[in-house]
Amino acid sequence: MGVSQVATNPYEMLDKNEANYQPLTPLTYIERAASVFPDRLAVLHGDERYTWKQTYERCRRLASALAKRGIGKGDTVAILAPNVPAHFEAHFGIPMTGGVINAINIRLDAESVAFILQHGEAKVLITDREFSDVVKKALHLLPKRPLVIDIDDPQARDGELLGEMTYEQFLETGDPDYAWTRPEDEWQAIALNYTSGTTGNPKGVVYHHRGAALNAVGNVVTWGMGHHPVYLWTLPMFHCNGWCFPWTITAMAGTHVCLRRVEAGRIFELIHSTGVTHMCGAPIVLNMLINAKPDEKKLPLPQTVNVMTAGAAPPAAVLDNIEKMGFKVVHVYGLTETYGPAAVCAWHDEWNELPREEQAILKARQGVRYTLQDGLMVADALTLAPVPADGKTIGEVFFRGNIVMKGYLKNPTATSEAFAGGWFHTGDLGVMHPNGYIELKDRSKDIIISGGENISTIEVEGVLYQHPAVLEAAVVARPDEKWGETPCAFITLKEGHKVSEADIIAFCRSHLAHFKCPRTVVFSDLPKTSTGKIQKFVLRDRARALNEE
Amino acid sequence: MGVSQVATNPYEMLDKNEANYQPLTPLTYIERAASVFPDRLAVLHGDERYTWKQTYERCRRLASALAKRGIGKGDTVAILAPNVPAHFEAHFGIPMTGGVINAINIRLDAESVAFILQHGEAKVLITDREFSDVVKKALHLLPKRPLVIDIDDPQARDGELLGEMTYEQFLETGDPDYAWTRPEDEWQAIALNYTSGTTGNPKGVVYHHRGAALNAVGNVVTWGMGHHPVYLWTLPMFHCNGWCFPWTITAMAGTHVCLRRVEAGRIFELIHSTGVTHMCGAPIVLNMLINAKPDEKKLPLPQTVNVMTAGAAPPAAVLDNIEKMGFKVVHVYGLTETYGPAAVCAWHDEWNELPREEQAILKARQGVRYTLQDGLMVADALTLAPVPADGKTIGEVFFRGNIVMKGYLKNPTATSEAFAGGWFHTGDLGVMHPNGYIELKDRSKDIIISGGENISTIEVEGVLYQHPAVLEAAVVARPDEKWGETPCAFITLKEGHKVSEADIIAFCRSHLAHFKCPRTVVFSDLPKTSTGKIQKFVLRDRARALNEE
Repeated sequence: MGVSQVATNPYEMLDKNEANYQPLTPLTYIERAASVFPDRLAVLHGDERYTWKQTYERCRRLASALAKRGIGKGDTVAILAPNVPAHFEAHFGIPMTGGVINAINIRLDAESVAFILQHGEAKVLITDREFSDVVKKALHLLPKRPLVIDIDDPQARDGELLGEMTYEQFLETGDPDYAWTRPEDEWQAIALNYTSGTTGNPKGVVYHHRGAALNAVGNVVTWGMGHHPVYLWTLPMFHCNGWCFPWTITAMAGTHVCLRRVEAGRIFELIHSTGVTHMCGAPIVLNMLINAKPDEKKLPLPQTVNVMTAGAAPPAAVLDNIEKMGFKVVHVYGLTETYGPAAVCAWHDEWNELPREEQAILKARQGVRYTLQDGLMVADALTLAPVPADGKTIGEVFFRGNIVMKGYLKNPTATSEAFAGGWFHTGDLGVMHPNGYIELKDRSKDIIISGGENISTIEVEGVLYQHPAVLEAAVVARPDEKWGETPCAFITLKEGHKVSEADIIAFCRSHLAHFKCPRTVVFSDLPKTSTGKIQKFVLRDRARALNEE
Repeated sequence: MGVSQVATNPYEMLDKNEANYQPLTPLTYIERAASVFPDRLAVLHGDERYTWKQTYERCRRLASALAKRGIGKGDTVAILAPNVPAHFEAHFGIPMTGGVINAINIRLDAESVAFILQHGEAKVLITDREFSDVVKKALHLLPKRPLVIDIDDPQARDGELLGEMTYEQFLETGDPDYAWTRPEDEWQAIALNYTSGTTGNPKGVVYHHRGAALNAVGNVVTWGMGHHPVYLWTLPMFHCNGWCFPWTITAMAGTHVCLRRVEAGRIFELIHSTGVTHMCGAPIVLNMLINAKPDEKKLPLPQTVNVMTAGAAPPAAVLDNIEKMGFKVVHVYGLTETYGPAAVCAWHDEWNELPREEQAILKARQGVRYTLQDGLMVADALTLAPVPADGKTIGEVFFRGNIVMKGYLKNPTATSEAFAGGWFHTGDLGVMHPNGYIELKDRSKDIIISGGENISTIEVEGVLYQHPAVLEAAVVARPDEKWGETPCAFITLKEGHKVSEADIIAFCRSHLAHFKCPRTVVFSDLPKTSTGKIQKFVLRDRARALNEE
């Protein structure tokens, strides 16, 4: 009678409450590991060994000590350290307070460190003694000094203590039974990771609890990982929070094997002494293992070691060689903005029947979305129309889903550009193969356009890596009056090898269309970013300078 | 100046958008399986075989055909079928429309089926020919007949077609490229499962997309499951949506091996012919395999078969015997309200060193929460104060987290009772052991109180199962003038075995405190619910009747 009635569907009348809805967070994983497997080995570092019970207590001490200094929801706590126990503990202890972990790259210069500390507004800095030179300078550049805590690792080479107290002293001030609470909202920030800044100022990528919890489990699903993996920390924890593996390995109640420095001898030693089952790393780490000398303990592997690699397309020759050694490689792909890997070259059993060279070509592709990621496509950068799945048409790579960052801290312009059209713009260029697997062709700024033809520098580099004398290779555009640009190769040779520019070009011509082959070959060291990525913008400058000589 | 300024934390200024937030749903798992592994075997049923591409097309045809009949968000579609391909497809096809799958127990009587169809307001019923007698009667009891679709499986024993068309004809009306959409909200209902109603009217338990997506992956983490499992459908899909395994196995791009009837011979045959790696089932299924005759092809297993069991505490003797056959048992625990299992008896490697009997005792415990469940406790039913972890103090078992139902459909009283205090009240009684593992002692209504002492019927049954002549056993309270109640055992003997009441009591006395031993032993068949649970309320009536004889 004049009162409009809205029929409510009965399914919609059932509300959320504390019993049936809790914010997703990876923090609950450590509580479970510690309560179910208190006596299992959780963290190993040199002679240091912590069980899950001990590790959980140390994390709670850290949280408690931070909380006593006023750290709470939305406060940034920075850490600058190699892969030591404190760094692992920070992945739980900091967010347990509601705070945000900002893991800083240990290879950065003082100015960059200062920029990050200031931009991220870190209230506490946990820093490793070995990097005190840089950190000391960075602290001097800051208008306001944070509370500084020193990790005084006996394995550190040198350096001085800069802070108010050591990490162990700081833990002593905390309560091992600290009653931390979950985030009120799973969208709450858990981590802040600055991009390496190959272009312009570093951007602060923000992760939330939901994405971290999901990608931690996404790694398990993607890798088909069993219980209690023994994980060797070859991948820096400051790199996308170690691709979420601090949380993944904890969810499986595995063992974290710390590694202060990535050295082939130490890696082989730990594989033998601790029963390593899993590790991650850029192809450069695989290259290091392949080229290890006998005195670096390059022994046959006592068990299969699963390796997840990403960061650059692994050249087919590298993949082939590392698998012959007994490593089982999974190739993944992602960016800082996607919590590390969010795509995987999911393997097909029937591909095992193919010649090894073809297998390596297939494995070098970036593949398909993680099961817990929602979308991955190659599309026109402006219209977002997907390119045909022909393996040829180049477009931009886009991700969408729960394993994509919250956004860039204090950078609304970059954030809205990155998310324009409801997809995350990676800036990577690639193709979609007929089977739905993507293959990167280049960063959009790296592609070479020669005589109107696109040349993928990754493709040319893949050929260069097949040359027996080549240790590392990078190809960039060199300006050219006639062609616009031509490929210019920068090459590092393996020890004891000699080869000429003409040899290299001839080798490329036997494997590539001629227009794709380098016109110039420069033998030199390769400049790298702090995360080990080759700095192509430096090489582009060098290539440009060649025209002025 | 008079305008209050609220400083917003910069982390909180980063909003959700389509690029970085998508509702969790298990539906995306099949899209991925089909696009990444289109030619892998997805579903096998007798001579029928479907690849992932075909299965995905069939699911989309189903969704499209339903949508054409007006099925959309919040509409219930019921299915009454054994574990055949259509039942599996319904787990994706129905929710792809926004609809809710209501899988009905095939062992129910017509009145119960009619109650469920009416209470759940099913608009469509997909029904298997073999159950047409019951379904026909149920349809007659309904004031409004839903659209009825017949599954006409050649393996069905008999029965008639009742509906407007067959399932295959219905699929023909659908579009294999149907563009389904995700739920707008991950809290949206995906499934409706009626409890078996051992007490009072069945309640309609509602699941949401978030919980289904998480528990599907939770099963992977709990089982440490690798890629491409071959899963034998010994567990009914109508039982908590097969504990979410339609979604779990699809997430891992495995193979679903259908099984129309749970028969030992057929199970052994499929284990050998299809390479089964995983299966689930109540202890009664394990018992069936243990007691299989040689003509039921009880052969040595060609590969390890992982078995997840739940539904009742598996007696130690059953666990011991099944593991000797080569099955690897994981004991899990949960309820319809927790999407099936949400706790697991997580195994410790060091327990492998214990005598087999002690191992079986440990494995019979219900254990700890799933990694993706948030809380599990044993506490006072009223105050919710946790009991001491002494392995003795009995309390009620409570769950909390994302793997707990939305609530009971159209039953706000039962819903709020179940969630009182922010925990889900299971109605199960148990203890907490010092290591944090729970052990069920009884349903709250099943406990026997004799001379003021609590007697766990599960404990007494565990002893009875150790007797070599006992096939099945159930213990209930018999009213007693002196003691209040005394234990009364109902026992089924193995074929060819004879044993007296006195023998049984003497056997119990050699293993149990005397006050816990049965005072009465009845040799008879055991009445069961449609899900195979022993109906203790029937036995309690019988025990009570003994006093009147």
